[in-house]
Amino acid sequence: MDWKISSTHYDSEATADNGNRFLIGNGYMGIRGTLDECTKEQLVAINLAGIYDQVGTGWREPLNAPNPLWTQLVVNGKNLDITDENVVSHEMDLDFRNGVFHRKTTWKLSEGQVTLESKRFASIVDAHLIGLRYSVTSTFDADVSILAGIDGDVWDINGPHYEKVTFDHSGHLLISEAFVQNKSDQVAVLRLNHIDHNELFDLEAIYPSALQGILKYSVKLPMEQTLDLSSTCLVYTTKDGQNPLKIAKAHMKNANYEEALKVHLKGWEDIWSISEVEIVGDEEAEVAMNYSLYHLNIAAPRHCKNLSIPARALSGQTYKGAVFWDTEMFMLDYFLYTQPEVAKTLIEYRIDTLGGAREKAKSYGFEGAFYAWESQEGGFDACSDYNVTDVFTQRPIRTYFKDKQLHISSAVVKAIMQYFKYTSDNELLTEGGLETVIECALFYRSALIKPILKEKYEIHDVIGPDEYHERVNNNAYTNYMAWYCIHSALELVSALKEYDRDKFLELDQQLAITQKCELLNEVINEIHLPKPNEEKIIEQFDGYFKLEDTTPAIVKSRLKHPKEYWGGGNGVASDTQVIKQADVVTMLECFHEDFSKSTLKANWMYYEPRTEHGSSLSACMYAMLACRFDEPDKAYPFFMKSATTEMRGGGKQWAGLVYIGGTHPAASGGAWKNLIQGFAGLKFVNDEPVLTPNLPTNWKTLRFQIKHKSNIYAFKIEGKKATYTIINS
Amino acid sequence: MDWKISSTHYDSEATADNGNRFLIGNGYMGIRGTLDECTKEQLVAINLAGIYDQVGTGWREPLNAPNPLWTQLVVNGKNLDITDENVVSHEMDLDFRNGVFHRKTTWKLSEGQVTLESKRFASIVDAHLIGLRYSVTSTFDADVSILAGIDGDVWDINGPHYEKVTFDHSGHLLISEAFVQNKSDQVAVLRLNHIDHNELFDLEAIYPSALQGILKYSVKLPMEQTLDLSSTCLVYTTKDGQNPLKIAKAHMKNANYEEALKVHLKGWEDIWSISEVEIVGDEEAEVAMNYSLYHLNIAAPRHCKNLSIPARALSGQTYKGAVFWDTEMFMLDYFLYTQPEVAKTLIEYRIDTLGGAREKAKSYGFEGAFYAWESQEGGFDACSDYNVTDVFTQRPIRTYFKDKQLHISSAVVKAIMQYFKYTSDNELLTEGGLETVIECALFYRSALIKPILKEKYEIHDVIGPDEYHERVNNNAYTNYMAWYCIHSALELVSALKEYDRDKFLELDQQLAITQKCELLNEVINEIHLPKPNEEKIIEQFDGYFKLEDTTPAIVKSRLKHPKEYWGGGNGVASDTQVIKQADVVTMLECFHEDFSKSTLKANWMYYEPRTEHGSSLSACMYAMLACRFDEPDKAYPFFMKSATTEMRGGGKQWAGLVYIGGTHPAASGGAWKNLIQGFAGLKFVNDEPVLTPNLPTNWKTLRFQIKHKSNIYAFKIEGKKATYTIINS
Repeated sequence: MDWKISSTHYDSEATADNGNRFLIGNGYMGIRGTLDECTKEQLVAINLAGIYDQVGTGWREPLNAPNPLWTQLVVNGKNLDITDENVVSHEMDLDFRNGVFHRKTTWKLSEGQVTLESKRFASIVDAHLIGLRYSVTSTFDADVSILAGIDGDVWDINGPHYEKVTFDHSGHLLISEAFVQNKSDQVAVLRLNHIDHNELFDLEAIYPSALQGILKYSVKLPMEQTLDLSSTCLVYTTKDGQNPLKIAKAHMKNANYEEALKVHLKGWEDIWSISEVEIVGDEEAEVAMNYSLYHLNIAAPRHCKNLSIPARALSGQTYKGAVFWDTEMFMLDYFLYTQPEVAKTLIEYRIDTLGGAREKAKSYGFEGAFYAWESQEGGFDACSDYNVTDVFTQRPIRTYFKDKQLHISSAVVKAIMQYFKYTSDNELLTEGGLETVIECALFYRSALIKPILKEKYEIHDVIGPDEYHERVNNNAYTNYMAWYCIHSALELVSALKEYDRDKFLELDQQLAITQKCELLNEVINEIHLPKPNEEKIIEQFDGYFKLEDTTPAIVKSRLKHPKEYWGGGNGVASDTQVIKQADVVTMLECFHEDFSKSTLKANWMYYEPRTEHGSSLSACMYAMLACRFDEPDKAYPFFMKSATTEMRGGGKQWAGLVYIGGTHPAASGGAWKNLIQGFAGLKFVNDEPVLTPNLPTNWKTLRFQIKHKSNIYAFKIEGKKATYTIINS
Repeated sequence: MDWKISSTHYDSEATADNGNRFLIGNGYMGIRGTLDECTKEQLVAINLAGIYDQVGTGWREPLNAPNPLWTQLVVNGKNLDITDENVVSHEMDLDFRNGVFHRKTTWKLSEGQVTLESKRFASIVDAHLIGLRYSVTSTFDADVSILAGIDGDVWDINGPHYEKVTFDHSGHLLISEAFVQNKSDQVAVLRLNHIDHNELFDLEAIYPSALQGILKYSVKLPMEQTLDLSSTCLVYTTKDGQNPLKIAKAHMKNANYEEALKVHLKGWEDIWSISEVEIVGDEEAEVAMNYSLYHLNIAAPRHCKNLSIPARALSGQTYKGAVFWDTEMFMLDYFLYTQPEVAKTLIEYRIDTLGGAREKAKSYGFEGAFYAWESQEGGFDACSDYNVTDVFTQRPIRTYFKDKQLHISSAVVKAIMQYFKYTSDNELLTEGGLETVIECALFYRSALIKPILKEKYEIHDVIGPDEYHERVNNNAYTNYMAWYCIHSALELVSALKEYDRDKFLELDQQLAITQKCELLNEVINEIHLPKPNEEKIIEQFDGYFKLEDTTPAIVKSRLKHPKEYWGGGNGVASDTQVIKQADVVTMLECFHEDFSKSTLKANWMYYEPRTEHGSSLSACMYAMLACRFDEPDKAYPFFMKSATTEMRGGGKQWAGLVYIGGTHPAASGGAWKNLIQGFAGLKFVNDEPVLTPNLPTNWKTLRFQIKHKSNIYAFKIEGKKATYTIINS
């Protein structure tokens, strides 16, 4: 297959979209696919993971680092830009097998043609390092200057975040320090240039503004010769240590462009040795799937032990760089099955933010842990009470995502349970995992409420995954997941008692586990779990069936403004059965073994025509469930929708004046889940892989690898036949 | 005092308002204060009590009868209209002591001047009868025609309600029958004319359109002589009997204009003999108060035993002619203290509609009786789920008045308890009153809900009297009233056991009272009743204090459209502490004896600046409570606001294209409550009147009468001194 995506012309309209499609990164940072000479006007960003700032009453969002890749070509005194009329050819591509972005542009001047070729990578191994190779060739003897700078005038959605940006240089090393507003946080960016034409060049340091530092290399470039500049760049922040500049300088002493590139390429080969997916008979799916996995990998935290992946990954500041349930529900499986240490890091992020979840629970009158809907550092919930703007009045609309989406904590429990069952890594449990699960279970217990006329406890006033219907009672997904969390806590405690009595006793003393389990035991069988009706349909929430039964198309036709919000108190969908995304279907996927296939199908058939699929999380669940009731061809279009989300790009980039574009790692993770658990039907029973393949009709062969405990398995599926080999251990 | 309101010129702009201010009526019908020659363009209406129709998906609303008062004067071939340019003088007045509307208009023609004088009354004794005297004088010998017709082209807000209107005549009798769309309901209207100039006139019956029947009297009228036409009109509907025309004809045989007028005037004297209020030192208050009482009396049902008073009385079809809690909470006291048989009728309406209330409860998953928020025939809830229109999108807004204003049933209980305690009329109790109270108590029991972390039962997801805040938990008013209803049921059962053991046993067998009381007894002490905080303030609902603390003026300044709704999911007040009307203050008024005066005052001082007073029900409760903590001068402006509501008129007449004007009987009733229970501080202790006067500083003497059991008391209050005499028994 072709591991490249490319563009053969420049289109300023596509700048925002291409920034995401050509993104490189390494879990520490994401570098948008913009060109060397571009600035914030073209949405250049080096988006940093897990370090946030708030300016005034704006949204708290992650920092973008000063850009050490900014480089301007000057030939015979003229700046050459991609937007010039005299560009005669332009191509750019992303080699997503190797994580290398490349561009090649030729300008026609009166003296002849000048070609610029550059490539860059963000080391997948050395998370702080970015490499840039910048090459210029001319058809005439030219006075060439390369302005190799650091651009501190960064693009922000809710900035500016830096109070000041300072610059310094020493020989070929350019240094920038950016100081965050009213905070002790800093970002240090270093750029060390190496130029081949050592004897010919003239070097000058210039500081054209308070936000820019430049090393200007001026060269007499003979015709048809190539001038190569390579830059090794480092980014550190105060999250990495008290004095990021000092750490960066020490690091730079050992940095070398060629060496770093080798290590980087080897890093990617290691990843693909397990992750690569082969789909014979459907190249589109194959390419899209591997490209999606590339995007998951450039967002995966490998450099630290408690970081997660934001909903738009590291493609920018969209959605505040916050972590949603997307990670646990959609991305986790891929990492768990291929790089379990990354899965562990994602979970440790939640364990580390248990304090924030406890505080949130308390602030709403609950016990236990109520995780942030939009989680930032320390579990701070970045979600606003007003997440949507009324397009008619420009006033914020009170939304309840933050306070009523109680199901968020259950995603954390599900992740821990999956991790524990898949890896048998007891350490994670005893180091906070069990406590987290118990706290989430106590949270759900504290949300139970018993109407005097009812026998069972109910859960009222929530929002389920379908956010269009707010403040509903007994959302099936929420109730089942609440039950699941309480059940999981009791199950884990039993398991721990069994396999490590001493550890149990130690934790019991610390955490009063026995006492808490008593509380949980009292309610475990007393929770109302909505059952299928005579038509086998489970009602999404109390009263859902009484709502107007219509279709997304009809609801859409009622819009009076293309951007108006469909949900909330007054949206076009609110009083109808039209839902934003899989809700009951998500519940059934989670508990598919507890329902008959005919029930799974009946609900799929009922809810699908009523689903807008207004979230990139929706398609995956429909694809999963269709596989569960053995109809892969029903699943296929939904799988493809998820799998091609990144490849297709496009989609909504702007909400009014706010940039909301970015990558969709949950869709990518969901697609992989579909592939492995859906179409291949893989699960482990007693540590043995069991497959029940259900391939789409057009697929001849499906090959993939996964890691399970100490083994790496290579699977091959043809029709209903599945084979595997253990390739090493 | 002057018992007249008058207008000395014609103003077409004031037509809608004057229709209410000059309204006459008798509880069977309300006749808007429009002129003889006017039609639906001027909002002429003979609004009928308790008979409704719905056309298509429009609002179900009461019928307006064909108008038998329509009369057109023709002189020398020219129609004389109030809108003519040659009107030289015009005056109209309402004698509200006698319930007589009068107009006098003079036209100047080329031949000389013509004067028309007419007066009309709706018999306060004979509910079906309307009398009209129509007199014409001319300064020249004139050819005068009087077109004395019935206008079937009635004004409707959501009509037309009549499929056809038929006309017939026989001598001086004009007959019209109006047939309601798709229903068996009919309205029969008769007009019997009597003309003095028997020998001179020429009579012709004409039917100019399918909706009009006219008897045309043509007369040669000598100069300075007066031509008198008197008409006796009758209105009957199928609510009065299967064949309303037949009943009307029989009635007409005994009808006589002069006799009917006498009876009518005597009827009013009887009413005023108890109702008249004297306020020495404040004529404005005195006139406004008596005028308000006039309005209450013309809406009071005396002709049947199960009818109530709509929120806009009989002034038209506004608010669907539906009965709200206004009747029980604001109007009942006046009737109870002066005409207890009317109070009984109002209550019997609720007892009769218990079936509808039971159905409503069931449809929302409750037990017992959940009364209609906007009650029509049979307790049908006319309230829409979409009661408000979004001014920006013209889309209906989902409101929760109907389904979440649980407090409505408690108003019914309060009325029954007040009636029972005031009159000791056991019959009402045993004939449905007790059952109603028990059913309401069971309704509130069924709404109880216990969060697992709480000790007490709570009530969630309601709207209190302040409708701007929807779907709140533990609204103080609702919780206290729920407790009150359960307590009242238990109290009444105990009382019945005490005074009529046999009746109790009989009812117990019929209604399983003992069993129901057991259920009620289990919860009576287990209901969460929000208590005052350290500053003695009771929080209106859970979380109210956390809302933005601002003022109505500031909230108003945020409006982007003058008519946008302040409440609901997205209103300017919804997320603030600004409330529509008295809420906690209403609760405290209901339970003022259970709280210290300093608590009453602290809450008044807290909530008043946060209250928009966007309902005519608000001022009365603020006035009441201020009297309870002995600050009548704080009460006075709120009393005056209520008392002068009808006198002042004006106010909002139109919401977009929908007419919403009308009279405000709740404000009138509230003002009387203020006067008697607030300023005079009257209550009965062991059947003896006890007064704790708190007159406004400018009031010298307050005199009023009330009826209590077999006595009529006349009270006189001067400063803190109160005396009374029993004037008959």
